[in-house]
Amino acid sequence: MSAPARLLISCPDQPGIVAAVSGLLTQIGCNIIHADQHSTDPTGGRFFMRMVFEPMGVSRTVVAGAFEAVARRFDMQWTLSYGERRRMAVLVSKYDHCLIDLLWRRRRGDLEVDIPLIVSNHPDLEKDARFFGVPFYHLEINRENKRAQEDRMHEMFLEHGVDFVVLARYMQIVSPEMVARWPSRIINIHHSFLPAFIGAKPYHHAFERGVKIIGATAHYVTDNLDEGPIIEQDVVRVTHRHSVEDLVRLGRDIERQVLARAVAAHLEERVLVYGNKTVVF
Amino acid sequence: MSAPARLLISCPDQPGIVAAVSGLLTQIGCNIIHADQHSTDPTGGRFFMRMVFEPMGVSRTVVAGAFEAVARRFDMQWTLSYGERRRMAVLVSKYDHCLIDLLWRRRRGDLEVDIPLIVSNHPDLEKDARFFGVPFYHLEINRENKRAQEDRMHEMFLEHGVDFVVLARYMQIVSPEMVARWPSRIINIHHSFLPAFIGAKPYHHAFERGVKIIGATAHYVTDNLDEGPIIEQDVVRVTHRHSVEDLVRLGRDIERQVLARAVAAHLEERVLVYGNKTVVF
Amino acid sequence: MSAPARLLISCPDQPGIVAAVSGLLTQIGCNIIHADQHSTDPTGGRFFMRMVFEPMGVSRTVVAGAFEAVARRFDMQWTLSYGERRRMAVLVSKYDHCLIDLLWRRRRGDLEVDIPLIVSNHPDLEKDARFFGVPFYHLEINRENKRAQEDRMHEMFLEHGVDFVVLARYMQIVSPEMVARWPSRIINIHHSFLPAFIGAKPYHHAFERGVKIIGATAHYVTDNLDEGPIIEQDVVRVTHRHSVEDLVRLGRDIERQVLARAVAAHLEERVLVYGNKTVVF
Amino acid sequence: MSAPARLLISCPDQPGIVAAVSGLLTQIGCNIIHADQHSTDPTGGRFFMRMVFEPMGVSRTVVAGAFEAVARRFDMQWTLSYGERRRMAVLVSKYDHCLIDLLWRRRRGDLEVDIPLIVSNHPDLEKDARFFGVPFYHLEINRENKRAQEDRMHEMFLEHGVDFVVLARYMQIVSPEMVARWPSRIINIHHSFLPAFIGAKPYHHAFERGVKIIGATAHYVTDNLDEGPIIEQDVVRVTHRHSVEDLVRLGRDIERQVLARAVAAHLEERVLVYGNKTVVF
Repeated sequence: MSAPARLLISCPDQPGIVAAVSGLLTQIGCNIIHADQHSTDPTGGRFFMRMVFEPMGVSRTVVAGAFEAVARRFDMQWTLSYGERRRMAVLVSKYDHCLIDLLWRRRRGDLEVDIPLIVSNHPDLEKDARFFGVPFYHLEINRENKRAQEDRMHEMFLEHGVDFVVLARYMQIVSPEMVARWPSRIINIHHSFLPAFIGAKPYHHAFERGVKIIGATAHYVTDNLDEGPIIEQDVVRVTHRHSVEDLVRLGRDIERQVLARAVAAHLEERVLVYGNKTVVF
Repeated sequence: MSAPARLLISCPDQPGIVAAVSGLLTQIGCNIIHADQHSTDPTGGRFFMRMVFEPMGVSRTVVAGAFEAVARRFDMQWTLSYGERRRMAVLVSKYDHCLIDLLWRRRRGDLEVDIPLIVSNHPDLEKDARFFGVPFYHLEINRENKRAQEDRMHEMFLEHGVDFVVLARYMQIVSPEMVARWPSRIINIHHSFLPAFIGAKPYHHAFERGVKIIGATAHYVTDNLDEGPIIEQDVVRVTHRHSVEDLVRLGRDIERQVLARAVAAHLEERVLVYGNKTVVF
Repeated sequence: MSAPARLLISCPDQPGIVAAVSGLLTQIGCNIIHADQHSTDPTGGRFFMRMVFEPMGVSRTVVAGAFEAVARRFDMQWTLSYGERRRMAVLVSKYDHCLIDLLWRRRRGDLEVDIPLIVSNHPDLEKDARFFGVPFYHLEINRENKRAQEDRMHEMFLEHGVDFVVLARYMQIVSPEMVARWPSRIINIHHSFLPAFIGAKPYHHAFERGVKIIGATAHYVTDNLDEGPIIEQDVVRVTHRHSVEDLVRLGRDIERQVLARAVAAHLEERVLVYGNKTVVF
Repeated sequence: MSAPARLLISCPDQPGIVAAVSGLLTQIGCNIIHADQHSTDPTGGRFFMRMVFEPMGVSRTVVAGAFEAVARRFDMQWTLSYGERRRMAVLVSKYDHCLIDLLWRRRRGDLEVDIPLIVSNHPDLEKDARFFGVPFYHLEINRENKRAQEDRMHEMFLEHGVDFVVLARYMQIVSPEMVARWPSRIINIHHSFLPAFIGAKPYHHAFERGVKIIGATAHYVTDNLDEGPIIEQDVVRVTHRHSVEDLVRLGRDIERQVLARAVAAHLEERVLVYGNKTVVF
């Protein structure tokens, strides 16, 4: 049995979309396994759909060709994937928890993804990368060379056929140029329950504010720091007994889980971005 | 704008179902707003679908008539509703929390349901029922008259046009005859995280076992005590500091929420039963 | 058996405090049931303690008298209560969920508190108040009379022997004068996970930001809007399918629970305020 | 600054215990940092206390000697530790998630423990053990040699100065002899929310029962399978969409977290066993 194919659609809402798409796929012999839809507003909003189907031997080219007319009719933006394995670059700094978790989940088969390279501005995590069989590149970054190093990184991504980038506690602000090159394709994990505690040292700020719950947020990176479309969030309860160090420790468990769930959703093409928000099917 | 209509379908899985149903609805002028599907097994399993659509003026009779052929072709069990307001009977004993919560949610408009009657084997909650404007009937139940009183209750349900029954901590075992008369239409709230602690005094057993989390379960009533299809569950953390009385108190908050969510899912026709399990869309 | 007494202490941290306090209570014949301590910093921080003890017939005056010397020695701020029943005023606007929940929990005996009066700037909830047997006062508030009406309210609180005030979705900003009169004795429920979405319409802002979790926060009111010491918080998961109205509806369940837990903690004297934070034992 | 010392006490409840213990420690110059108490029943129950104190240079021998009289007076069972680093043996089978998580947390410093050896009846995880620098022993186990291999294991534990044993998804039932040798010192992680789904294949049973939440439970091993004192539990929400394989995958995240929290509680000597229950301070 071949891998199921996925059709992602976004278009102005109007009657007949589900029937047109499912009718077409059935007509050319594909078998719909699952479909999700969302409309931002039943009257004049935007419509999103994700259809998972068994191609039944019908090739990607044939499906795409047949779909063209429907897409034009409804003014659709769409992507069609045939279970192509994605390639993910991971940027890290010195923190190991998110990286090890991603590497372990990939080894385990929980994340069906290739990781052609890990890049870091510190050499600390090279041994971990190597243990899990992933090439590690150390690119030192300072004020002067930041732009140049990002260019180099970008070239490395292209060379390695990277599809998307994960900032697994990278601790560096990515330049607007980089963001523009990888729109909705850089996933960051921020160690707070956004929009609370944007920016640096969120656990310190959470401690000072005396919150009773802390969290983590995975989002697509945009030009506005920690303000990109949120993919996933989770929280954990804390008390007055917890020091800042405790929050950091408890936060690690949330960070790695939230990031892993966001990466899984991205890989399974369950995330659609509109404006500054996401639909996560 | 008329209320959206809902089509619920269950049939043997095979290719073409989504296309056939959505094609038909579109063809006769209805506008699909939302659809959910589930297959127990892509190869030879059972297929479930819930379609929410704007009838656009097409009457129930026309939709149902047009749908007959499709239903036959795919050997479907199906129901079609046009937002008819459901009528819910509530059975209670002495505990007030679930009842008050349901009554308040109905008053609030959170639960769009009519409650034509509340029946109890104790007179305690009559004042509460009256405050929320619902007729309250006290039917004393003992070993000798149980069967007769259930018959009377059943007649009252028929007289009041009841669609389904909620046991809001009713504390009585419903007879197999009653269950047979209301298949998948009696919702019970059990005060444990089933299948742990089936039967009486679950909080006492939870206390004795020393669990660190307690829960509540809403399920459809079948002949096997506390073993019917589960609709909804939730839990709350407890510690060694909590007495049995504390568990009972903490449990009340979980019970009323789980029951309310289950009733909402039932009302919105998001629950499909198969075997001893549920699909909750 | 008499109700247990409670001693709350706050003082500069130094060795010997636990021994001195527990030694004194034991010496005069009291029986310690439970004790909690917290130190903001083991070296030179502030120390907090809550001791629950069975007085064993020793009067409040005798305990307080004996305690004076210890309190002086350690420079303690302290309060001693002998299970005196507290009196709580509730301010509401038009939203019923928090009010009904508090009234029901008090009737149920979950909250051991007297509610001598409910005050509102709208008449809507009078019937609910009356059903639960609590006097309801309607004080219309506008720009011109706000200060005068708050003075009147304050006098009503004094007349009714009020110990603390709960803003159960009051929807009015309380003046600095009012706050100064009731320091750490006004509890507010804010319908967001603070410090996210301070101020008006937090559910709308949460919807616009596209968060995947919403929350509620109970805190003591200070002069800075929604920035007082947090007592309790909780959250609920949401998705792209939820409209603003859904967030409001889901939020109600969190709001009433968070507020009830905060009120319970306050009543049981488990909350100690320091700076802008709380210790919640 | 030396590591804080910990005194764990269990004795029949009676007045004066807190005062006696805290008085003694203060008298000999120690500084109490934190204390927790619990009484199973204020009238004639069992009393538990955990006291954390800064020894201030007073030796273990002196504290223990001074404490003897108090312990006799109150008929106490007690242990005194001076922050001695514990030694933990880990038994595994083929599943890697719990092991890697424990090893990573130890490397991270989250778990302050030595792991002198890992023993497995399968060779699969040797590479992982080695990467984290822990000796790995493969002891094949079958029906015939089980008793002999357990004896060998026991000797290895003694040779390596093991304090307690963790079954990190060991998948073997430990013999009563082994349990008797390590009372309340073998921690198991069971992949269900006990007491639901005792025994083999709990995820399959959870799937068949159609539960809406699954969980994991860490407990001390006793002679009754999966019925020992529960240390920690946690849960995760599931739906009809999740296959058994999904439950297994989601369960892994819960299992490793619950086990890690239980091991941390055990290491910090926050767990006291009484009957078949635990106090977890």
